[in-house]
Amino acid sequence: MTDIRKAKIAILATDGFEQAELTQPLKMLREAGAEVHVVSLKAGSIKGWDKDNWGESVPVDRELSAVKAADYDALVLPGGQINPDVLRADEKAVAFIRDFYNTGKPLAAICHAPWLLIEADLVRGKDVTSYGSIKTDLKNAGANWMDKEVVVDQAMITSRNPGDIPAFVAKIIEEVEEGRHEDRRQVA
Amino acid sequence: MTDIRKAKIAILATDGFEQAELTQPLKMLREAGAEVHVVSLKAGSIKGWDKDNWGESVPVDRELSAVKAADYDALVLPGGQINPDVLRADEKAVAFIRDFYNTGKPLAAICHAPWLLIEADLVRGKDVTSYGSIKTDLKNAGANWMDKEVVVDQAMITSRNPGDIPAFVAKIIEEVEEGRHEDRRQVA
Repeated sequence: MTDIRKAKIAILATDGFEQAELTQPLKMLREAGAEVHVVSLKAGSIKGWDKDNWGESVPVDRELSAVKAADYDALVLPGGQINPDVLRADEKAVAFIRDFYNTGKPLAAICHAPWLLIEADLVRGKDVTSYGSIKTDLKNAGANWMDKEVVVDQAMITSRNPGDIPAFVAKIIEEVEEGRHEDRRQVA
Repeated sequence: MTDIRKAKIAILATDGFEQAELTQPLKMLREAGAEVHVVSLKAGSIKGWDKDNWGESVPVDRELSAVKAADYDALVLPGGQINPDVLRADEKAVAFIRDFYNTGKPLAAICHAPWLLIEADLVRGKDVTSYGSIKTDLKNAGANWMDKEVVVDQAMITSRNPGDIPAFVAKIIEEVEEGRHEDRRQVA
C-alpha cells in the first residue's frame, strides 16, 4: 500500500507523444499529491504532438540513464504515433520498461504506447486495450484485446485514447494505492 | 510477363506518408514507362512527411472507392509512421491490399508499410524486411524477418527505409516484368 501523496511516478516519453496523454496525467497525478518525473532519452525538453501537428514542449525531469525501476512506484507510457515507435527501438527504454514490469508495480500504457509492452514481450496472455489501429499487433503478441476505456490485468493498466484519460488516471492512482502485484510473471 | 512500359501501378497512401518513399518510386516508375496512380481514401491531395515534419503534398489520381485490384499490375505501399497507422484502420484499404495479394501480382511495401501486410494477415511464413522498429510486430505476425535492403517472397517485395528505394524500385520493375505469382496462398 502506497499513499498517492507519497508516491513517485515516472512518465517515460520522447518527441511525438500525444500531448494530452502526457500533460493531463502529469497534472492530475501531481494534483493528487504524487511526485511525477518526465523521463526521457536526453535532457532538455520533448515535443508533444497535438492531434495533427507538433504541439507544446515539456521539460524532461530525469534522463533515462539516471533512473532505475526501483526509484518509482508506477510507470506511465503516453501514446502518439511517433513517440512509442521511437522508444521501442531504444534498447535502454525497453529494458527499463521490462525491469519495471518485473518489480510488480503499476505499469500504465495508453493509445499507441502498448507497442512498448509488445516490444518488451509483456502482453502474452494478458487482458489489454489500446488505440484500435494496433489491436492486431497486440493480438499477434498474445494479448487478449478488448475495447474498454480502461483494462487492468496484474497491475498493468491500458487505455484506448485521450478520451479515456480520466478513467486511466483514476485506475493508476487506485493501483498505486494497492501496491505491487506480487504474482506477476517475471520476464527475462 | 508485363512490359513495364505497358504496366499500370497503384501507390496507396494517405497523409503522413514518408515523402521520399512515395515521390521517388512514383518518379522512377513513371520514368521507366509505367502508368502510375496515387490512390487514396479521398480525392484532392495527400500530405507527405519529410523526416521530422510535414512536407509536400501530392495529388491523388484515383479515389480508393473508384479502383479495384484487377485495374493494376502492381501495388506499392509507402511508409511513414502516420500513413500506414491510419490506412490499417480503414477496412476498405485493408480489403484492397488483400484483394491485390490474392491476384498474385507484385505487392511492395517499404519502411513502416509492412504494418498493412500484418493487418491483412499476409506475412505468415513469409520472408520480409521492414523498418527496424516494427520487426517484432512482423515476427509476431508469423513472418521470417531479415535485415536486407530488399526481400522478395512470392512477388511480395519489402524494403527497410528510404536508402533502399533504388533496390526496392528495381525489384518492383523486375517482378512486374515477371508477371503474377501463380502459387501464392490465397487469404480470406
